[in-house]
Amino acid sequence: MANPVVVEATRGERIESAHRGAGAVVEADGRIIMAFGDVERAVYPRSAVKALQALPLIESGAADRLGLSDEEIALACASHSGGEEHVATARAMLARAGRDERVLECGVHWPLGEAEGRALARSGRTPNALHNNCSGKHAGFVCLSCVMGVEPKGYVAPDHAVQREVAAAIAAATGARLSEDMRGVDGCAIPAYAMPLIALARGFARLGTGEGLSAARRKAAARIRAAVAAHPLTVAGKGRFDTEVMSLLGAIVFAKTGAEGVVCAALPGTGLGLAVKADDGAGRAAQVMMAALIRRFGGFDDETAARLQPFVAPRLLNWNGAEVGRLRTAGPLA
Amino acid sequence: MANPVVVEATRGERIESAHRGAGAVVEADGRIIMAFGDVERAVYPRSAVKALQALPLIESGAADRLGLSDEEIALACASHSGGEEHVATARAMLARAGRDERVLECGVHWPLGEAEGRALARSGRTPNALHNNCSGKHAGFVCLSCVMGVEPKGYVAPDHAVQREVAAAIAAATGARLSEDMRGVDGCAIPAYAMPLIALARGFARLGTGEGLSAARRKAAARIRAAVAAHPLTVAGKGRFDTEVMSLLGAIVFAKTGAEGVVCAALPGTGLGLAVKADDGAGRAAQVMMAALIRRFGGFDDETAARLQPFVAPRLLNWNGAEVGRLRTAGPLA
Repeated sequence: MANPVVVEATRGERIESAHRGAGAVVEADGRIIMAFGDVERAVYPRSAVKALQALPLIESGAADRLGLSDEEIALACASHSGGEEHVATARAMLARAGRDERVLECGVHWPLGEAEGRALARSGRTPNALHNNCSGKHAGFVCLSCVMGVEPKGYVAPDHAVQREVAAAIAAATGARLSEDMRGVDGCAIPAYAMPLIALARGFARLGTGEGLSAARRKAAARIRAAVAAHPLTVAGKGRFDTEVMSLLGAIVFAKTGAEGVVCAALPGTGLGLAVKADDGAGRAAQVMMAALIRRFGGFDDETAARLQPFVAPRLLNWNGAEVGRLRTAGPLA
Repeated sequence: MANPVVVEATRGERIESAHRGAGAVVEADGRIIMAFGDVERAVYPRSAVKALQALPLIESGAADRLGLSDEEIALACASHSGGEEHVATARAMLARAGRDERVLECGVHWPLGEAEGRALARSGRTPNALHNNCSGKHAGFVCLSCVMGVEPKGYVAPDHAVQREVAAAIAAATGARLSEDMRGVDGCAIPAYAMPLIALARGFARLGTGEGLSAARRKAAARIRAAVAAHPLTVAGKGRFDTEVMSLLGAIVFAKTGAEGVVCAALPGTGLGLAVKADDGAGRAAQVMMAALIRRFGGFDDETAARLQPFVAPRLLNWNGAEVGRLRTAGPLA
């Protein structure tokens, strides 16, 4: 019944902690290439589906109407670190719609990136909604709303026109049924729909290949992948998983982390979509799981595979920089 | 085989993440009052045993020789937030031994407390070893070393006189065998010895009651409990579990969190020692587990029990402050 142990944290010669989880590797037509753990149980993808949530902004033509840049499109898919560049880009997106941060309904938090947070504190300022890691996604919602001719106020509500478009895009990509009983509220106040991991993986296979999507949506998916591949720092931040993996691999992979231990990825060249969830919500475990799957299914040469090793088996250092342990894959991922 | 699910994180009507774990409630003579999960498996207590590690400083007479204050003794048991007060207290401890931060071997990190870290950044400064959350423990080691007439340099090594004393005190309190094969290196570079959860709980029963300890060690344990009860902000920091629970309950409980999902506690009035470990290393789960055990075994009136509810079932808020879920106990703790 319990999902298998998939990641272990060692200290010295002993296992200090262990993470259980599930994962799926799926083709766009739904064929399962690999699955471990309960991949039918519904999980909240959280921010891992930001690229799917950004599809309506592009496929509707709103992004082109407002002249959004690739960097701005990448920010619409981002859980950004709250650096100066991220904030400036979010502000610019809103300006294209004739708005400013007062329209944002995501709430305020200190930058997700520790260095970015300290830089803001050092400057003597405090954060506003633009620093929220979801501000690019929300700015995208505002842009879409304005081009649709709909008042943005209340755009986070499930029955707002924007959220209806977003839910329809997620449902079309994943094949999941986004009913009210599957719905929670995300950290940034928008609806969060739970769905089976296998549907999530399929959604990413379709995001990666365009297969099974309408022509407009297929084009939008390609535009998003290209924008993020060109701006990996925009989609997360320095030192963070999505940014570092995509900086290393380029357009070979599109990876997106969500809160509570979810990571999804597309490997467009192979046609595969991947999704993992650490049962306990640990990001460190989900990232190791995903790195192991990317390495296994990415079709890399030995040199590239070796460069993925720091993500598959991160070293754990003490404050003097000495290695005291590691994360490592276990069970079906060992 | 797998430990039971003991804490669940909900979002809307669904369980988003779940934590497995083990826990033990034990009397000083070793009698088990409650146990769930595998309590014989060795776990690293990490910072949860700082009070045991501080015993030699007191029982040797070193603290009295140097005139350490209660606040300084509390800091010797602390995983502090790196606030101005914490740093000043650590500096003062070292000054009593005629030393300064250059003697510390714990390494440097930005303050554990987010607000404290931003305050430091805002001041334009960067951290030194005094900001390390373990600086009080290390300052205590330096004090002990100096009073013993031993050169402090290398005091983090397992064979340094200080670490031998520390290991002896832990072994005496817990009854655990601290052999080399049970040893890893902690985040602050000192030895970390793994031991069964049940031994850890017993050590805290003895720390709480003095039962089974030498007269000097019993007196030292009482001094440490009183010092921490008088200075709950010193031992962690504002908003953190140990500080908040001890601020609420006073000397009724001595609680100490360690990294990777460990919390230990003594309930001196009941004679009980408590120890929990979240399998996955999640602090949020371990704190909920411990809060539930404290509430169950603390013998509280209804009003006090109700005031523990925010620790037993913390609300999860989005960035607008709306409740989107909760942590809650499950399985043997439900």
